[in-house]
Amino acid sequence: MTDTMTRTRLLPSYVQDAWWEPASDEGAAVVRDASTGEEVARVSTTGLDLPGALEHARTVGQHSLAPLTFHERAILLKQMALALTERKSELYELSSRTGATKHDSWVDIDGGIGVLFTYSSKGRREMPQSTIYLDGPVEQLSKDGSFLARHICTTLPGVAVQINAFNFPVWGPLEKLAPAFLAGMPTLIKPATPTGYVTEHMVRILVESGLLPAGAIQLVSGSARDLLDHLRLGDTVSFTGSAATAASLRLHDAVQTGGVRFTVETDSINASVLGPDAEPGTPEFDAFVRGLVSEMTSKAGQKCTAIRRALVPSGMTDAVAEAVRERIVAKVVVGDPRAEGVTMGPLASLEQRDEVLGQVMKLREGGGQIVVGGDAGEVRLADGSMGLAEGGAFVAPTLLAFRDAEADALHDTEAFGPVSSLVEYSSPEQAAEIVARGGGSLVTSVASHDPVFVAELTRRIAPHNGRVLLLDRDDMRASTGHGSPLPMLVHGGPGRAGGGEELGGIRSVLHYMQRTAIQGSPTMLTALTGVWHQGAPASTEAPHPFRKSLAELKVGDQVVSERREISLDDIEHFAEFTGDKFYAHMDQAAAEANPFFPGRVAHGYLLLSFAAGLFVEPAPGPVLANTGLDNLRFMTPVSPGDSLRVTLTAKQITPRETDPYGEVRWDAVLTNQDDEVVAQYDLLTYVAKTQEDASNPPVASA
Amino acid sequence: MTDTMTRTRLLPSYVQDAWWEPASDEGAAVVRDASTGEEVARVSTTGLDLPGALEHARTVGQHSLAPLTFHERAILLKQMALALTERKSELYELSSRTGATKHDSWVDIDGGIGVLFTYSSKGRREMPQSTIYLDGPVEQLSKDGSFLARHICTTLPGVAVQINAFNFPVWGPLEKLAPAFLAGMPTLIKPATPTGYVTEHMVRILVESGLLPAGAIQLVSGSARDLLDHLRLGDTVSFTGSAATAASLRLHDAVQTGGVRFTVETDSINASVLGPDAEPGTPEFDAFVRGLVSEMTSKAGQKCTAIRRALVPSGMTDAVAEAVRERIVAKVVVGDPRAEGVTMGPLASLEQRDEVLGQVMKLREGGGQIVVGGDAGEVRLADGSMGLAEGGAFVAPTLLAFRDAEADALHDTEAFGPVSSLVEYSSPEQAAEIVARGGGSLVTSVASHDPVFVAELTRRIAPHNGRVLLLDRDDMRASTGHGSPLPMLVHGGPGRAGGGEELGGIRSVLHYMQRTAIQGSPTMLTALTGVWHQGAPASTEAPHPFRKSLAELKVGDQVVSERREISLDDIEHFAEFTGDKFYAHMDQAAAEANPFFPGRVAHGYLLLSFAAGLFVEPAPGPVLANTGLDNLRFMTPVSPGDSLRVTLTAKQITPRETDPYGEVRWDAVLTNQDDEVVAQYDLLTYVAKTQEDASNPPVASA
Repeated sequence: MTDTMTRTRLLPSYVQDAWWEPASDEGAAVVRDASTGEEVARVSTTGLDLPGALEHARTVGQHSLAPLTFHERAILLKQMALALTERKSELYELSSRTGATKHDSWVDIDGGIGVLFTYSSKGRREMPQSTIYLDGPVEQLSKDGSFLARHICTTLPGVAVQINAFNFPVWGPLEKLAPAFLAGMPTLIKPATPTGYVTEHMVRILVESGLLPAGAIQLVSGSARDLLDHLRLGDTVSFTGSAATAASLRLHDAVQTGGVRFTVETDSINASVLGPDAEPGTPEFDAFVRGLVSEMTSKAGQKCTAIRRALVPSGMTDAVAEAVRERIVAKVVVGDPRAEGVTMGPLASLEQRDEVLGQVMKLREGGGQIVVGGDAGEVRLADGSMGLAEGGAFVAPTLLAFRDAEADALHDTEAFGPVSSLVEYSSPEQAAEIVARGGGSLVTSVASHDPVFVAELTRRIAPHNGRVLLLDRDDMRASTGHGSPLPMLVHGGPGRAGGGEELGGIRSVLHYMQRTAIQGSPTMLTALTGVWHQGAPASTEAPHPFRKSLAELKVGDQVVSERREISLDDIEHFAEFTGDKFYAHMDQAAAEANPFFPGRVAHGYLLLSFAAGLFVEPAPGPVLANTGLDNLRFMTPVSPGDSLRVTLTAKQITPRETDPYGEVRWDAVLTNQDDEVVAQYDLLTYVAKTQEDASNPPVASA
Repeated sequence: MTDTMTRTRLLPSYVQDAWWEPASDEGAAVVRDASTGEEVARVSTTGLDLPGALEHARTVGQHSLAPLTFHERAILLKQMALALTERKSELYELSSRTGATKHDSWVDIDGGIGVLFTYSSKGRREMPQSTIYLDGPVEQLSKDGSFLARHICTTLPGVAVQINAFNFPVWGPLEKLAPAFLAGMPTLIKPATPTGYVTEHMVRILVESGLLPAGAIQLVSGSARDLLDHLRLGDTVSFTGSAATAASLRLHDAVQTGGVRFTVETDSINASVLGPDAEPGTPEFDAFVRGLVSEMTSKAGQKCTAIRRALVPSGMTDAVAEAVRERIVAKVVVGDPRAEGVTMGPLASLEQRDEVLGQVMKLREGGGQIVVGGDAGEVRLADGSMGLAEGGAFVAPTLLAFRDAEADALHDTEAFGPVSSLVEYSSPEQAAEIVARGGGSLVTSVASHDPVFVAELTRRIAPHNGRVLLLDRDDMRASTGHGSPLPMLVHGGPGRAGGGEELGGIRSVLHYMQRTAIQGSPTMLTALTGVWHQGAPASTEAPHPFRKSLAELKVGDQVVSERREISLDDIEHFAEFTGDKFYAHMDQAAAEANPFFPGRVAHGYLLLSFAAGLFVEPAPGPVLANTGLDNLRFMTPVSPGDSLRVTLTAKQITPRETDPYGEVRWDAVLTNQDDEVVAQYDLLTYVAKTQEDASNPPVASA
């Protein structure tokens, strides 16, 4: 590995299921080690057939992913995560060349792998064993039940292009890949050139794992050139990077009029707010300072989510600045991330360092005063001494303070490095206004233990943020921190943050799908979705559906029970046995006075229990357990003398990929002697995949 | 009324809660009656303070809507619907001047009012009694439960600008107003000039109803001039109209980089597909022809959703053309919509007529042959004779046929009038390709009784459509038709259809809100959302929470029950009583062989029933009924000898606006003697608003 890295090479792309290198390195960009300046690789796409790669995704890629169910794709994501885990030390080694400390690499590499695991798990728990996702419940369009609607989501018919930033060469591609892959869209990864060699190796591991369906992943190492010219309706672009680049890409015809979905996540002027209650000495004060220093120094502040504006109550600037200074001296060691003990590396390049120093100058010109660090700020070095970090793209952690909360520079000048600014506020309203001045942010954090302040401030700032972290003594130990997007939470934000949305669990999978309202008869909706809809044909042929394994059971298999009369004795007996002597069951006069009951009525749970007695098959068989129940509604009261019937229909069948059983969701309808619906619910069961699995019961997995 | 209409007037705008008219009619546009050409009104916004109107919405409008809960806003929508219903004859009278027949006006006026009713109902049934909407379930971020997340949606802080098309002057504004209003956003309505006088009267009725919160609705009658220059982050624009106008608006900085959300719904080249099974004589053939003629003639074909391409199986062109011709002769009467018996009026203006005739020419040049109607097509007139409709912007219903399914004109030339084209297909794959050639559509309908064909075709066309209507003998009587967007279903489509999404029930309310992930401790999430989260403080102080009315109950009020031991006798007794003798309860050896049970276990419903016995308060009180149960999961089996405890906590309290009671959702957790969770669910109850309501029980409303 080290050997390969010390000589400079032309970084390959992976297109049309094969590795590709340019014929020559003429005009190739040179990529350098962030700490040593040593050449790492050269990068060029001269001669690469981009239209061919895109078309390969749309044809071969779509074709290989389309037959896989969400669960099958989810399993592949898990296997990909395992393949990457097995070889992650290779990625760590490369990552350190980008200026990342071990912790920074952990966020990038393990964080990225974690996204795959989370999507694998959510894909299996929250999506169906199918290729169509159902969005929301049935809508009744006619009183007679003959005309219904469902919203379905289906895979967009194109290629998911991702254009990534340099700061997360592993997490960046994976957090976009996971939802697109789960949605069934092939991905084309375009990493940022300065750290693309880490992404290349990540893709290499995936390719070598043999797990990738044909055309599912392609990699363009280097300039994307006229990529957007070749995109069309059904394709998507997910862009992470600068607002300026986003704006120029967005102007392209493909996006403006071509119908290409364009999602943007740009760095933003995020804020952190210290609550008025969080005085020095409180756990919240400490958590605030810890968060601030961590966001300044983690990844050397090169994170879209880093804190740029730290809002503190009036009069608290000095105390906070002092605490930040102390913590930096005590905890932050600056140097080559490969050196022992180093907690903050250099910026990604000398150009980035110059850019950041220029922005710091602008902040100062705009009213900011340096209170910690700055140009000549000494830092703790790897040898333990205080001094200037030299030889790479180092910048000392720098904190400024603004007296004027209205200063433009505070709200619109971003130094994409270890730089933050303090500013004071005097009321929740003002704090909210200051946060909003950022023009839309990825995240704001609030450190306070006062629920009234927190609730008021959060209501006001929520519309301006994609994520809000509430930090207090109760959650600070478990908190994942201000700067960490999590796969189950939306990542993105309004306005300056790009206006896009990534992650957020299944929400982001749906961004790679088209939502369509389908109107039709129960029969047609059942045929399309694979989920039985009330009114569709049902089969009551023997045997009892509880005697059928998953292999034999079909949606629409139904059992209609005998009738059972409910007597007053039953009600009294049940009350006595369970202890539930609610007056509506026991006292005729009181029950009659209740607006919902005609007189004494049966317990809801008595009805459920009798219903089970009516449909259950006692002997061992494929049905292994009743695991739960959804959406139970009691609709008509049952009086003594009424008789009960239950109709149970197999509604949705979900074999598990990794277990010898699966889940069957049954539609349960309880009716009375007048065919009025008494209660309705979904019954959930585990059912063995085969009769053999049923008679040789499987061991349950987690 | 008639009197006002016969003299031409300057159409007022309604801004900053007052009616406004331009100082002079210099440069005003003249609007004419579509049938008679008579002048109806003049329209100008010269001198109108647009920035002032926008700022009024952002300040006064936001301020008056913000304190109202979703339910309060929903009630206002219903009252607005009732106010419009009461005076709708005035709207019908005006509407006929736009060329609309009574049926066309019904679609526009009653359809628009219906949107308000639906959103009122959905707002109360599907949204909380709150100003924050919770999106999705709790996400556990730490194992110890101290760090959780929820996604919340909060009102965007700006103004919802709508730019409408001429064809639905009532439905258009109302279908955009309803979700924005429910979301808490003030609306500025900009109607299309040719029919803005109908919209003006609709707004007038609302203003005169006295129902409108200050700043909630404004109307700009006439040109919007530099409106977009004054929009900013937090504002939204919903545009309905031509793709060209959409493209030019989208290019504006406010949208490109200003973070203004821009939703587009443009007319598209929609399709209808006749299934191979639907031969002449089948109900599906008739439904297809009926739908085609209806979409050609309703609103004289001036609908974004009209069928432009009718796909028929190979060899079916002549049969379909003949059936269409017959139906037009039998059913369609063309003339001034105010004349008796007329079923199709003129286009909205002479300009529209010329535009449509030009497009028909292009279709012919592009390979289409006229098979019904055309330039000199005679139609049935109001006097019963066949002839040419003269004197207004009339166009005869015109059907073309294309031999070449690949012809560009078929897929990209829209004649926005009573014009459709037939084309043949030979397989579901080819039908899907033809549909996709439209470049993204609002709707496609499929007439077939073959579930295999329907399912295959629908899977393929869904990604290219916002809505798909499946028409067959089972739903055709109840069907609302190809061209009708419904408030509960998304309206919009990819690509050429604009890429936007309107309606779709609560989905579209969320388009006017910002989704934000909130991470925090259970306490803080409870304070913010008003919904109790597990781990937040709970109060077990007497009295029992079931003794508290809605006025007294607080989220977090809790009862922890005594323990109850479950004996083998209990299990056997329950089995005997209910008839549920499933082997896991009755047969030790068989139960042990089951992978999920340690041996004989208690019935799930026994646990639920005992739990009720443990927490129920028998005497009459504020709790009126158990109405249902959500998300029940059995988590740990209960063996004989185990003891059960239930902890019940008030989770969400939802007083009803129009009833003396409301819904309380309780968090129920059943634990065993080792504090393992045995089962978990949400219990739903009705609870009286006050103790007095409880003792003088209310009459339930629907």
